[in-house]
Amino acid sequence: MTDPGLPLAGMCVVEVSSFVAAPLGGMTLAQLGAEVIRIDPLGGAPDHHRWPLAPSGTSLYWAGLNKGKKSASVDLRSAEGQQLVTRLITDSGPDGGIVLTNSVGRDWLSYDALVPHRPDLIHVQIEGHHDGTPAVDYTVNAAVGFPMVTGPEGHADPVNHVLPAWDIACGLYSALGILGADRQRRVSGRGQRMSVALYDVALAAAGNLGFLAEAQVSRVVRKRYGNYLYGGFARDFTTRDGGRVMVVALTKRHWADLLTATELVDVVGALEKSLGVDFASEDDRFEYREVLAGLLSRWFSRADLAGVKAALAGTSLLWSTYNTFTDLVADTGEGPEIAGNPMMALIDQPGVGPHLAPGLPVSLDGSSPRPVRAPVLGEHTDDLLGRLGLSGGEIADLHERGVVRGTDG
Amino acid sequence: MTDPGLPLAGMCVVEVSSFVAAPLGGMTLAQLGAEVIRIDPLGGAPDHHRWPLAPSGTSLYWAGLNKGKKSASVDLRSAEGQQLVTRLITDSGPDGGIVLTNSVGRDWLSYDALVPHRPDLIHVQIEGHHDGTPAVDYTVNAAVGFPMVTGPEGHADPVNHVLPAWDIACGLYSALGILGADRQRRVSGRGQRMSVALYDVALAAAGNLGFLAEAQVSRVVRKRYGNYLYGGFARDFTTRDGGRVMVVALTKRHWADLLTATELVDVVGALEKSLGVDFASEDDRFEYREVLAGLLSRWFSRADLAGVKAALAGTSLLWSTYNTFTDLVADTGEGPEIAGNPMMALIDQPGVGPHLAPGLPVSLDGSSPRPVRAPVLGEHTDDLLGRLGLSGGEIADLHERGVVRGTDG
Repeated sequence: MTDPGLPLAGMCVVEVSSFVAAPLGGMTLAQLGAEVIRIDPLGGAPDHHRWPLAPSGTSLYWAGLNKGKKSASVDLRSAEGQQLVTRLITDSGPDGGIVLTNSVGRDWLSYDALVPHRPDLIHVQIEGHHDGTPAVDYTVNAAVGFPMVTGPEGHADPVNHVLPAWDIACGLYSALGILGADRQRRVSGRGQRMSVALYDVALAAAGNLGFLAEAQVSRVVRKRYGNYLYGGFARDFTTRDGGRVMVVALTKRHWADLLTATELVDVVGALEKSLGVDFASEDDRFEYREVLAGLLSRWFSRADLAGVKAALAGTSLLWSTYNTFTDLVADTGEGPEIAGNPMMALIDQPGVGPHLAPGLPVSLDGSSPRPVRAPVLGEHTDDLLGRLGLSGGEIADLHERGVVRGTDG
Repeated sequence: MTDPGLPLAGMCVVEVSSFVAAPLGGMTLAQLGAEVIRIDPLGGAPDHHRWPLAPSGTSLYWAGLNKGKKSASVDLRSAEGQQLVTRLITDSGPDGGIVLTNSVGRDWLSYDALVPHRPDLIHVQIEGHHDGTPAVDYTVNAAVGFPMVTGPEGHADPVNHVLPAWDIACGLYSALGILGADRQRRVSGRGQRMSVALYDVALAAAGNLGFLAEAQVSRVVRKRYGNYLYGGFARDFTTRDGGRVMVVALTKRHWADLLTATELVDVVGALEKSLGVDFASEDDRFEYREVLAGLLSRWFSRADLAGVKAALAGTSLLWSTYNTFTDLVADTGEGPEIAGNPMMALIDQPGVGPHLAPGLPVSLDGSSPRPVRAPVLGEHTDDLLGRLGLSGGEIADLHERGVVRGTDG
């Protein structure tokens, strides 16, 4: 049951998906209150055993990206299985008729195949490129330029991101497309055929942030600046005891506070005067970043992490220590640090056990919708077939003939 | 005018924003058809001159993140200016009353201050942390673990991403919150108070992808794997002539095609037999990734880029060359490669000139909504005041007294 108080209560989305983008898009709609039914082929899609894994072998990745959904397991190669999924899509009430998929090569699941059965169909096809050729986060990332400007200064090789940022953005864009189309359908009754290409998501980001125009209009050949902030002042510093701190001075006030905290007001003032520059200006801070970082790093390297934290705590400055994932879940004596975050809650996932999981990172009326565990593959197969009006005997027959499966595989 | 055929036609959003997240959220709603009014203080918010810049000094970043919006420039410290913005928010028709902001410390702009004037208010506050303490992409990134697993193997220092991935996701989540709340308001008439914390967006991603559970449940201390794919086989390779190619083998078919294309079927088959492993399994491919990459890199280093492209072109394999931003905009004789992408179109931005800009990376009924240039600061101030019923004389008086500005600053 979805929570009737959530924004998307009543909406029903069928997802035929794998990996990150489509599952995240669907999960986000589920977190906002929609009923989201993930359809998998018998035995699961290729992401069903994707790393990272729990000690039991259960995929933490699959469990993390499919929280709060229903799961049906169907032989998608059989005409009968295809017809059942088609009915789940089309016979789903006025707030249903919504498909989110990254599946390719399944003609029966296309907009054109489904729309005769559901004229107000809302259909989102996630694809690699707009022409339908395949791509994944790693190839799109290589194609669009970011690995050539990421990583240590002077490093010669591309540095790929580990965060699948394009998949995440693509999934969120696909959910936005669905909600936009749902609004239009409420106003006008018409459905919508949409596609979101992973490559286009990445190219749009490069354009929106000015990277493409900088190359095209300003003819700047962007290089690597390590952990410096381009066009301003930010960098990481190491403390005497090996602590690592990221420090960001975006505004004049940040900069003034940083100089005061690090006892560099006079030294930097004298430097400004002798150079004839103004470090209150971001341009000058970036131009002289190495000089400024050199002075600052002396202060950081003489202090221990506790001292740095104490000195920066009362300031306006933007700063953070660097954490590992292990740091975030380490028991501090009062449980892990992240357990205090109101978005996080314990869920008990079959094959994983109790662990902290995030809910929706959007707080509604002051609280985040709580996380709901992921289904086990095929957990809702029978319920969903029952909803289509099939009798217990008919459902048993479908199992017998291998058209559908429950949690037994 | 917004396009009446777009999904969000009629919706009106007021944005008091800066930097990436809130502006991108608003721009995405504008690209889907909403009227989005960005309010700036006189002279612009702190992002108005953010790098990268055009040769004229115009910010390509600001221009890129505010496309298709209206701009009003108002003295936000004056009570009169605050009242005008309040009226723009509240007197905006049944599909208005929507605020998107990352501004802090402006009590008059809070949900509680505005809701008495507009009971069905939809209000999204973007913040650093859920407790209201500030953070930016760079500090959140440090806090949440990804820089410690990104970058070359064996590298000791954190590697920050250059793509502000958390800002992008945060902006898209905020737009999703607005569309969810808009749907709920249509159904029930009630508004919604929302907040999206940048840190929570990052923490949720770390949780959704299984990174947190891997540390907590599996007690794996994740390390850097360079450009290898965790738990599968993917890596970058260098060709004889210095070309760089990212290669991803996710499925058995990809792997088989990669071995065939690189003439390694027999060698890898013999290796499998002698080691007693099965490289059709992703786990084994990851376990022996260095051995496999060593064999593959010999083939890549003997071929030139054109030969590699020819060998991989007909296969199922996922692969891409690495490009720089300059490569993407370089004239290939028939204009830049990206000019052929149907999402990209020429816009003529004041202070920048004609350049290729992305539209929405969601195609609707087969085509992407075209990009619309960003406003000049204050370009719509007078139009918007006129909409509130102010006369020409009253508007001139507001200019005179410095409460509002047009494009003169």
